[in-house]
Amino acid sequence: MDEAILKQVIEAVAQASPGGVPSAPAADAAAGFPLNNQQYTEKREQDVTSHCKAITEYVGSAMGDTVGLVIANLDRHLHESMGLDPRYRSIGIVSSRTGAGPQIMAADEAVKATNTEVVSIELARDTKGGAGHGCTIIFASEDVSDSRRAVEVALKELPRTFGNVYPCDAGHVELHYTARASLALEKAFGAPAGKSFGILVGAPAAIGLLMADTALKTANVEIVTYASPDKGTARSNEIIATITGDSGAVRQAVISARDVGVSVLRSMGHNPVSMTQSNL
Amino acid sequence: MDEAILKQVIEAVAQASPGGVPSAPAADAAAGFPLNNQQYTEKREQDVTSHCKAITEYVGSAMGDTVGLVIANLDRHLHESMGLDPRYRSIGIVSSRTGAGPQIMAADEAVKATNTEVVSIELARDTKGGAGHGCTIIFASEDVSDSRRAVEVALKELPRTFGNVYPCDAGHVELHYTARASLALEKAFGAPAGKSFGILVGAPAAIGLLMADTALKTANVEIVTYASPDKGTARSNEIIATITGDSGAVRQAVISARDVGVSVLRSMGHNPVSMTQSNL
Amino acid sequence: MDEAILKQVIEAVAQASPGGVPSAPAADAAAGFPLNNQQYTEKREQDVTSHCKAITEYVGSAMGDTVGLVIANLDRHLHESMGLDPRYRSIGIVSSRTGAGPQIMAADEAVKATNTEVVSIELARDTKGGAGHGCTIIFASEDVSDSRRAVEVALKELPRTFGNVYPCDAGHVELHYTARASLALEKAFGAPAGKSFGILVGAPAAIGLLMADTALKTANVEIVTYASPDKGTARSNEIIATITGDSGAVRQAVISARDVGVSVLRSMGHNPVSMTQSNL
Repeated sequence: MDEAILKQVIEAVAQASPGGVPSAPAADAAAGFPLNNQQYTEKREQDVTSHCKAITEYVGSAMGDTVGLVIANLDRHLHESMGLDPRYRSIGIVSSRTGAGPQIMAADEAVKATNTEVVSIELARDTKGGAGHGCTIIFASEDVSDSRRAVEVALKELPRTFGNVYPCDAGHVELHYTARASLALEKAFGAPAGKSFGILVGAPAAIGLLMADTALKTANVEIVTYASPDKGTARSNEIIATITGDSGAVRQAVISARDVGVSVLRSMGHNPVSMTQSNL
Repeated sequence: MDEAILKQVIEAVAQASPGGVPSAPAADAAAGFPLNNQQYTEKREQDVTSHCKAITEYVGSAMGDTVGLVIANLDRHLHESMGLDPRYRSIGIVSSRTGAGPQIMAADEAVKATNTEVVSIELARDTKGGAGHGCTIIFASEDVSDSRRAVEVALKELPRTFGNVYPCDAGHVELHYTARASLALEKAFGAPAGKSFGILVGAPAAIGLLMADTALKTANVEIVTYASPDKGTARSNEIIATITGDSGAVRQAVISARDVGVSVLRSMGHNPVSMTQSNL
Repeated sequence: MDEAILKQVIEAVAQASPGGVPSAPAADAAAGFPLNNQQYTEKREQDVTSHCKAITEYVGSAMGDTVGLVIANLDRHLHESMGLDPRYRSIGIVSSRTGAGPQIMAADEAVKATNTEVVSIELARDTKGGAGHGCTIIFASEDVSDSRRAVEVALKELPRTFGNVYPCDAGHVELHYTARASLALEKAFGAPAGKSFGILVGAPAAIGLLMADTALKTANVEIVTYASPDKGTARSNEIIATITGDSGAVRQAVISARDVGVSVLRSMGHNPVSMTQSNL
């Protein structure tokens, strides 16, 4: 009977304290990163019921503690302090604790789909104790409905773009690929508009360097930007390289970078897994 | 009987492991932030008994892993390396892992009450995995007793100033208001001395922007500074705006900013609560 | 009987959830820092069995989530983007989530022992939620075997150099001493080559300042560099001072700095303990 009680109690404790008695791989993957998409959605809906007041500026939220907001008519003085183009009165904002790459990729799809401009992309050193960035992306438009639409599109893209982020307790490997870069990628990395573009991120930083080297040797691609803890990042523990070239070459380079990055984290004894579902 | 044992055991486990089986709101509020003041004091006194050696430079500690130290006669070469005014031999230091706003507000009261100057305020990217800052504030005086007194006053103010910090797992909302800004606020933000002054902080950063916009639209206040992850912060995931104006207007603006900030975090499915007790 | 079940269950829960019901000092020491060396090695070997693919560039890993990699023939374009001296084709990399001092000290021994140069040392704001840095150190050589050897030596030194890091939940105290500084310390801090050299680190930052003051007053040593959250760090919550002088004086100064730093953390109610074994 003792055994039966024991089992029952452990289950009760595990249930009462999420993460209290986790299975090892799940714990590893979740370390320093938000819940996966399914868990996240559940949690949000559950919690929200009792508290939520309707805020007209609130558009929605998504993985990575990403919040989407819209301001129809930004205060004139604030507009000046932020140094925004006075042409635009309305802004949409996508802001996260975890992730810059996924949000920038999502914003790139959003500007393609809407009549907005990406006026600002700022990176914070965050990921809630992880090795990377959070970000704040501002869309601007003359009409507020365009900014709102851009935020909606970006939030909806996030489960897809987070699919190529592979976190574990020791760091993470993150990759992004698009066949046609648009204005968000141009703003963030000087990506050549309309061309294939890839982003390679590894943490601890050395992994990003090896990923970049592997990518450049695998296929006929060019390096666009190279960022490291001292330069081009918000002092994150990442090396971030971006590449361009023919569509097939960029894709092949990105995949080879992922494989070598994931293998190094595994060699370190960890088990990086996609935050949603890989789509490369 | 099984039920009774179950309950007893869960209590025992919860007691043995602080935070092990917490009630949900408490866990949310504590995420990435230190214990509230009551818990903190208890913990400190308990642990200290066996280890503590008397260090004359140690003044005390407080919430946010804040330590207060005093150096009666700072080494001359160190003085130079730090670039401090050679006039002052004695310094008092308030340094924290979590919180810059609460400590700066507390330091502002301390300079009002003592014969000291605030010679340095530095922000670190910290909060122990949270989205914000830690800080290091240096008071200087000719007589060491003045610096010591300033540190004591500042530490004593912290439970009050932390009352307007509302953390949750996704970020935080933080507000500060004073009817009369003094030298610490002037040093940190260029606050006009003797005037009403308010600080608005939101994380993830977008929340701070919406709070600033709301404050400026609510009452007749002027923006003094605007800081974001790329500029004016230590790459924290915050937007920080400061405002001035008539006393009633600043207070009203700060309260409206708090309400909108807290509502956004709630819409995201979280439950931000004051770290001690709100005093706005 | 209830008591017996209770005890059995608590043990079971503690076992199932590492860190779930820890003894106080262990929990304190581990906060925000990786496992100690013994635990780490065990964990790594256990996890690695099923996943590991052989990557020729992978040299090994060590405490602080430190990874050692080697690239025999760095891509020419990447070489340019990184701004490295074109003379060297091969690089070795030591990159960590936790720790800059221990890795720099280890790299200093590695350059003494091998035919390599330290071409880059970058600091990230990391320690996985702790107050300090991660780092990325690049060795370069004409022959890849030299770079590989340097990485191997550095990884092997880490358990020793981590011995003088004393973490606890509130911050950490870290010290390093060498009788003869070499090229890694020269690169990182402008250490005078061949002379005795000491590094003093305290977090929250105020502790580092008191440690520096104590060191300078204890023995006849000179300050070489002084770094604080705003200047010279990657916005970490540390004050870092480096000192030089006669061998005995530097050693004595470092020890006195350690004692005062550890005492302050204890006064705050914490119990900082060496991550491996002190060797001062």
